[in-house]
Amino acid sequence: MPDTSLLSLNTATVRRQWTLPQIVDGCVRHGIGTFSPWRDQVAEIGLKESTRRVRDAGLALSGYCRGGMFPAVDGSGRRAALDDNRRAVDEALALGAPCLILVAGGLPKDSDGKIASKDLIGARAMVRDGIGELLQYARPAGMPLALEPLHPMYAADRACVNTLRHANDLCDRLGEGIGVLVDVYHLWWDPTLEHEIARAGRAGRILGFHVCDWLVPTRDMLLDRGMMGDGIIDIPKIRGWVEAAGYRGTLEVEIFSAETWWKRDAGEVLDICKQRYVGAC
Amino acid sequence: MPDTSLLSLNTATVRRQWTLPQIVDGCVRHGIGTFSPWRDQVAEIGLKESTRRVRDAGLALSGYCRGGMFPAVDGSGRRAALDDNRRAVDEALALGAPCLILVAGGLPKDSDGKIASKDLIGARAMVRDGIGELLQYARPAGMPLALEPLHPMYAADRACVNTLRHANDLCDRLGEGIGVLVDVYHLWWDPTLEHEIARAGRAGRILGFHVCDWLVPTRDMLLDRGMMGDGIIDIPKIRGWVEAAGYRGTLEVEIFSAETWWKRDAGEVLDICKQRYVGAC
Repeated sequence: MPDTSLLSLNTATVRRQWTLPQIVDGCVRHGIGTFSPWRDQVAEIGLKESTRRVRDAGLALSGYCRGGMFPAVDGSGRRAALDDNRRAVDEALALGAPCLILVAGGLPKDSDGKIASKDLIGARAMVRDGIGELLQYARPAGMPLALEPLHPMYAADRACVNTLRHANDLCDRLGEGIGVLVDVYHLWWDPTLEHEIARAGRAGRILGFHVCDWLVPTRDMLLDRGMMGDGIIDIPKIRGWVEAAGYRGTLEVEIFSAETWWKRDAGEVLDICKQRYVGAC
Repeated sequence: MPDTSLLSLNTATVRRQWTLPQIVDGCVRHGIGTFSPWRDQVAEIGLKESTRRVRDAGLALSGYCRGGMFPAVDGSGRRAALDDNRRAVDEALALGAPCLILVAGGLPKDSDGKIASKDLIGARAMVRDGIGELLQYARPAGMPLALEPLHPMYAADRACVNTLRHANDLCDRLGEGIGVLVDVYHLWWDPTLEHEIARAGRAGRILGFHVCDWLVPTRDMLLDRGMMGDGIIDIPKIRGWVEAAGYRGTLEVEIFSAETWWKRDAGEVLDICKQRYVGAC
């Protein structure tokens, strides 16, 4: 039996098929000891019940998904985002997560969810300031924040931090209590990636490592991610860079796949994740 | 009448509706004095006939689309790509284009067009070497090459040069005869963009400026680009950076839009391009 003790399951991978309790049971059944749940799935059964189930199952968390989404059109929107992020910190603490994963948020949206500003530089300042304020809460609470740069194709609507360099720069500026999450799907294309992974490693700030694969063609910008080995990312190479930078944490599988993996039997998906962890990562 | 003398039409914008002769006539009819044709449209009526029509209409070119696509699985594939690029240089010369636009090409593909390698660093070396060899031909011929970085979402299948920084680095290395093309659609998200535009300007290497807009949501990664003003790119800001860097050339409209602009009457599209050039750029 190959060693899969560093494999972690991000619950997004089987979110259409299974509720959080089913995922917890599935992880135990398939010998996956670490996972990373999403807030909406936790909210569905409540934080207390989620915490009990995770503890009873003996599962560890590799992260908690997710906080962030800082930009807003006005101060009250930004304060609401911060309040929500503080609650996410509390939940992460209750669940025993090693970090709260942050996605920056994109351009500010109006109350209908439509983008209401083209000021990307301004949005980035809101992200910097928002994380800075959240750190005032998360740092004394002992909950590290893991900033995840997303692919540039999400810059408008999801995250205006799109390179590891930008994330590293923000971490340098914001000080203790924040690190980065390296996701191969978002970062594989970047010619400065090896350099910036080494930089993050020297700062001791790589808090997580996510994998899936980039399919050609990609039919949907959000929900057409591939299983490791089915696309064109040289995952072992990037994993090598992350490990050379001193990272010893889990390799977490996060696949959003409306037309393929979300339609398969979830148990089969977990089996294939394990096989690919061994053979394609 | 507002001055639209710096407006240029990339023929891709109305390629579904009009042939090259129709586009030439349309430009004249709509008072657009500069355009940038694609090779396949030129090939349709032949280079000689294309050259005659462009000259008779009194149109100027802002560029010729396009060369590049250097990576290949073997030496014969790379040589074939180079041969084709030399022909593109000849065509650009015959047409009186000020530059040949280059798109790098992505990961090497097999004979069925399927990606056959995950070696992105290797593909980038092929691009560097391919442009280097092409310069041996284009430089004495007096045809500048304009390297266009494409959005990172095209890194696998179309272009493994995805940032202006990478393009500037290549230009620094390759010497005289090569510059960059700045397209807001590909580069708007980049936090280093203002800096890299200034750097390109200092080197006197900005050879073209393309505009369209980024729609939210984007429904197709290739063919869902927006008319200026319909998306979220702050085009006037980026235009300001390009002009501050010393660029005095045209603003070229290039819109791939299968479901919207390619379905409209082409004359209307040209009118709207002119309106938006004045009001949204």
